[in-house]
Parts: sequence; structure tokens; C-alpha cells
Amino acid sequence: MATAGKVIKCKAAVAWEAGKPLSIEEVEVAPPQAMEVRVKILYTALCHTDVYFWEAKGQTPVFPRILGHEAGGIVESVGEGVTELVPGDHVLPVFTGECKDCAHCKSEESNLCDLLRINVDRGVMIGDGQSRFTINGKPIFHFVGTSTFSEYTVIHVGCLAKINPEAPLDKVCVLSCGISTGLGATLNVAKPKKGSTVAIFGLGAVGLAAMEGARMAGASRIIGVDLNPAKYEQAKKFGCTDFVNPKDHTKPVQEVLVEMTNGGVDRAVECTGHIDAMIAAFECVHDGWGVAVLVGVPHKEAVFKTHPMNFLNEKTLKGTFFGNYKPRTDLPEVVEMYMRKELDLEKFITHSVPFSQINTAFDLMLKGEGLRCIMRMDQ
Amino acid sequence: MATAGKVIKCKAAVAWEAGKPLSIEEVEVAPPQAMEVRVKILYTALCHTDVYFWEAKGQTPVFPRILGHEAGGIVESVGEGVTELVPGDHVLPVFTGECKDCAHCKSEESNLCDLLRINVDRGVMIGDGQSRFTINGKPIFHFVGTSTFSEYTVIHVGCLAKINPEAPLDKVCVLSCGISTGLGATLNVAKPKKGSTVAIFGLGAVGLAAMEGARMAGASRIIGVDLNPAKYEQAKKFGCTDFVNPKDHTKPVQEVLVEMTNGGVDRAVECTGHIDAMIAAFECVHDGWGVAVLVGVPHKEAVFKTHPMNFLNEKTLKGTFFGNYKPRTDLPEVVEMYMRKELDLEKFITHSVPFSQINTAFDLMLKGEGLRCIMRMDQ
Repeated sequence: MATAGKVIKCKAAVAWEAGKPLSIEEVEVAPPQAMEVRVKILYTALCHTDVYFWEAKGQTPVFPRILGHEAGGIVESVGEGVTELVPGDHVLPVFTGECKDCAHCKSEESNLCDLLRINVDRGVMIGDGQSRFTINGKPIFHFVGTSTFSEYTVIHVGCLAKINPEAPLDKVCVLSCGISTGLGATLNVAKPKKGSTVAIFGLGAVGLAAMEGARMAGASRIIGVDLNPAKYEQAKKFGCTDFVNPKDHTKPVQEVLVEMTNGGVDRAVECTGHIDAMIAAFECVHDGWGVAVLVGVPHKEAVFKTHPMNFLNEKTLKGTFFGNYKPRTDLPEVVEMYMRKELDLEKFITHSVPFSQINTAFDLMLKGEGLRCIMRMDQ
Repeated sequence: MATAGKVIKCKAAVAWEAGKPLSIEEVEVAPPQAMEVRVKILYTALCHTDVYFWEAKGQTPVFPRILGHEAGGIVESVGEGVTELVPGDHVLPVFTGECKDCAHCKSEESNLCDLLRINVDRGVMIGDGQSRFTINGKPIFHFVGTSTFSEYTVIHVGCLAKINPEAPLDKVCVLSCGISTGLGATLNVAKPKKGSTVAIFGLGAVGLAAMEGARMAGASRIIGVDLNPAKYEQAKKFGCTDFVNPKDHTKPVQEVLVEMTNGGVDRAVECTGHIDAMIAAFECVHDGWGVAVLVGVPHKEAVFKTHPMNFLNEKTLKGTFFGNYKPRTDLPEVVEMYMRKELDLEKFITHSVPFSQINTAFDLMLKGEGLRCIMRMDQ
């Protein structure tokens, strides 16, 4: 391509400081270095994690920064040593990576790559400790190795999943993070059997993706648990058969669930990150075979407490990160699930705005409206 | 048989009250009723659980009682409705059962039979609420449905595993309880891969059986953890390659294990029941793929506490009861493992006494000497 090896000037949404509206700026994007890939982003979505690090409450503030990590794009050029991708390949950037060389990547069970595991404090490329973004020569920091709120971005090859070029990037871009996280928590970790009963705690995008996984696995009863009764209507589209609002009961919600299921649910997936919900999700599973899976990220000071007899009664507690998907190895197949119409992504995409209106997407999320807002970079 | 349908008079060791030496008495053993089997016990062993309920500290005292639950015997006669067993069959009595009809028995994953799950407070048969033992017409209570400290005992058919008649009952009798519990915790629940690293907490008979499972599974590094350094020498016979005494370290033992294994063990099996050991066993497993299995029974007030991020880092916590073995379905195959010399039972049997010296077996266990003491009923 004509741009390969050169600096590209393009539009990006820069977060200059915590909590202030993003500003669309012209940035310079340096060429990719060894093991890096420069990607033209076509669609990006907004995820809670972007908002969380934009608000930067209680975390190390890293500004100015280009946020964004749910996206779909096309390879523009590749750096030295990149053999798996060529210009024109369709890719999904992922906030965590797969080097294919460490003990985790070599384990069938783990996706916690030693080299490219998520790092929210790092604002530079791991190869040389530098940023690839500048404005008038001044560096702008990266975010979780993806920084997709830019028309062009530079990403480590280990954080890019090469996908079917026939897949519509304006739909499959949501598989970059939240939807795969919830879906994989159910399909890869909880693994409900056909006809089983599954409880989902927290009916945001991740929880509804976990619910979509339960539907795909053939669960016959899917119980949504949320403090907001308005969530039930939307959840029905994802297969929700029963709804429980913990506020409607005086007894702990785990007791309510055990009673309504004659001993407990077969599987529970926790997507809120609240410690009480985590404990409830574990304690509501059936003895003998119940499995609870933790997805939501807890507070630093949270303590998980339960009576150990719950374990001895053959209940299992697991957790997952990014739905146990290995980004490069497994995401292409998730895209194929969508292509085969087994997985429905359209119902997650409730809004769409031009990239220039990115602050509208932030507003929608702050108000709790909708699930995913797609931003179109060409507008 | 000549005795079928008649009361049998035989010797039994009766616990008249808590903590007092057992007394060998002549008891009357009534014929088996519907779904019951009368078994001639040939060998019985002593397990901690017998001593625990004999001491009856803090539990409901049920006396006079015939204790005993690790044993091997031969069917003498069967009650109405028993079709799977006939006189002469070799059997292992089990303290928990398998009705083959409840949701747990029908689940591939559970062995917590609804009908015949262990009940330590019940001193009678579940069919009619009566005892089958009397002395001069006065009932003597049963123990966990087995009461094997008697030359003859009556057991529900669901609590008897029919085994290979070629198997030596003086050896395989130890598979009735503790050895299967530890072995199954590793083989059925922890499932270590060949070449992996396994930590075993508590090197009593159950812990050493868990270790035997790790050896059988091909673990290359087996770390024993015990407060008593004298346990290391014996544990070496079971494949122990490293020994850690938490008392030798100022930092928590989980940190010691994580450091000596470059990130954590692949599997941990907890056999002490102490809450600190339970927490350590979970926290010492490797992120990404580590699995900890709880076997030891905790105190009623114990609380399991950990940071939930340990789960989100893809560590799994499970518990097990009787090694997840279904007594009737699975124990015959464990006996076959011994017959094929894959499983070594001889090293668990450190003592043998005539049944008349049963109090010697209690003394040995109270002093912590040896692993299993077999009592020979014919002497």
C-alpha cells in the first residue's frame, strides 16, 4: 500500500483528561514496528471498560490517551516478523493477546498469555516502550494495546484475530470483548447440558451474551437475576424464561433460586462483579453437579466467603477471563457461529452513530441505555 | 443357607457409651427385610470416622451402637426385592449408597444419592425405622448403615458394591471408605495430567490415597504438605517427591508452594479439613488451569475466604464426597485396578489384629500410628 512505512495522519478521539468529553483530533500514527500491525478501523463499539478507564476513578490515570478496544478493521501494513497477517486481512483487535509461545498459550485450558495478558496501566507498545500516536510530535498513550477510537491504530500481532473476510465488520466487531466474554463463560466454562437450568446474574451486555450461550446450549430454563425490573423485557429476546429481582424478596436470592428450582440451578454465571451476587451465584447451584462461573470483575477489597461444605457437596466454582477464548485461535470460530446463524449478534446492537458523535455513545452508556453502540469510522 | 430367614447369634463389638472401650458381645442379628442384605463380615478396618463418632464430641450421641464401615464380606442372605445380589457374592459395604433411581444417581456427575446419602445420626434401617441388632431383645443402634464391627450385619442393598470374588477381602476391604475417598478425589475430580505437579495437604490415609492417585495419573512432582515432618518418610512410598511443613516458613504455605513451582501447582487436594489448609490449597494452584479439590470435612463454623480475583484468574475450586465414586457402579472397577496391580493397597495396611483386639486398633489410631489396621473376624 502507498501508506506502508509512512506516518499516517487521521482522525482519532482523544481523552485529554479523566471524565472530560473526548475530542476528535488529527493524530499521526507511526508505522508498525517488529511484530506489530497497523490496522484501519472500520467500526468500533463502546464497552463499559472504556468508560471505566476514561472516568479513571481510583486507577492510575494515563492521559492523554486513545481509548477503544471493541472493533473490526482491515490490516493496512505489517511490521518485521509478522507472517500470519498481510494487508487486506480482516481482523478483530483484542485487549488481551496470545503469543502462542508461553506456558499459558501452550496449555489447552488457559488464555492468560504471559506476554500479552491485559495491562490497563501500560500506555505504550511492549516492543520498544513507545507510543505510535503523536499530535504535533507529542505522544498520546495507547489503551490495552488496541486504541480503536482512531481511524488507524497499531496493535501487536498477538492481539489480532484474523477472521472470515465475508463477515460484516459492523456486526462482528462486538465479538472483540464483552459479547465473547459472556458467551464463552457459558459455552466454554459453565457448559450447561441440553435441557438444564441456568441462572444469569446481571443482565447487561455481558450477562445477555452469557444468556445467549445458555440458549445456544439448549438450556430449557434460563433465570435472569437483576436489580432492575426493566431488564426482563429485553432479556426475553435472549431466552430468559424467568426473572428474579433480589429486591422483591426478604430472603437471600440464592435461597429463592434454590426453592424455585427444587434444589438449585445446574449452572450459574455471574456478570455483575458485586461480591454478594458472586456468593449467591455459587450458593444457588445444585449440589452434586452445580457449576458457578464468575465473570464480573470485583472490587479490590472484595472477599468471597462461603461455607466450605458447599464445595464438599460437590458444587464447583470457576472464574473466567474473556470467556476462556484464546483470541487468535478461538475468535475466528466464534465469527463462524455468527455466519452459520447459530449466534445472533444483531440484538446486541441497539445504537449506531458516526464516529464524530462518539460522546453520544458515552452518554448512552452512562445513562444505561441500550447494549452496544457501534461507531462508523467513515462518517 | 441354613441361617436364611433366622436370627443369627454372633460376636459384635458394642460401643455402650461415648469414649469407653468397645465390648465384644453376643448379639442377635435379625434377617434382612425388603431391599436389605445380611452380610458375613470377614475383615473390617478402622477409620477416623468410627473414632470420631465413638468419641461423640459435639455430635448427637447414639448409643449403644455397633460402629464400623470399612469392610469386606460375603452375602449370607437377601431380603425381598433384592435381585442384584445372591448368597455367596463378595461385597464391600459403603457408608453412603446408590439407589440408582434419584436425580443424583441418574446424573453422571453426582454420587450424593438422595435416598441413601450418609446419615450419621440415624441408628436404624431406613425401611422400617428399626434396628436389626439386639442383645436380649434390647435394640443396639446401627452406624451409617453398615455396622461392620459385627460378624454379621444387615445393610441396604444400595450400600453394597458387588466385587470380583477373586479379590482378597483382607486387602480390598480398605476401599470401602478412606482409600477410595482420596484416590477418587485425585483420579475423578482433580484429574492431573501426566507430568504435572500435584500438592497433597494432609498425609494421613486419605491424603496418601490422593497421592497414590497422583502417582497413578503420572504426576512428575508430588508435594506433600503436613505439620508433622515424620510423615515425609512414609509418603515417599506413595510417590512424594517434595515435602513442605508450613511450620518451617514464616510466609503462608500457599506462597511457599507458588514460589517453589514457578507460579503454582497444577492440582491440589486438601485432606485435613482445616480451613487454613483449604484456603492454601486453593490459592497455591496455578492461574489459567489450576484445580483445587477439597476432601477434608470442615468444622461447622468454618468460613472459606479468598479474593474473588483468584477465580477470575481461572483457578477452579471443587469438593468431593467419597471421591465422586458411585458405590455400586464404580467400586468394582477400583477393585479391578488393584487386581491389575495399577493400585497398590498393601502399603496402606500397616497393622492387623484379631477382631477380639479391636480396642488395640482404636489405640493405634488415637496415637496416630500406622494407616490402616485390619481386624480379622475369624480370630
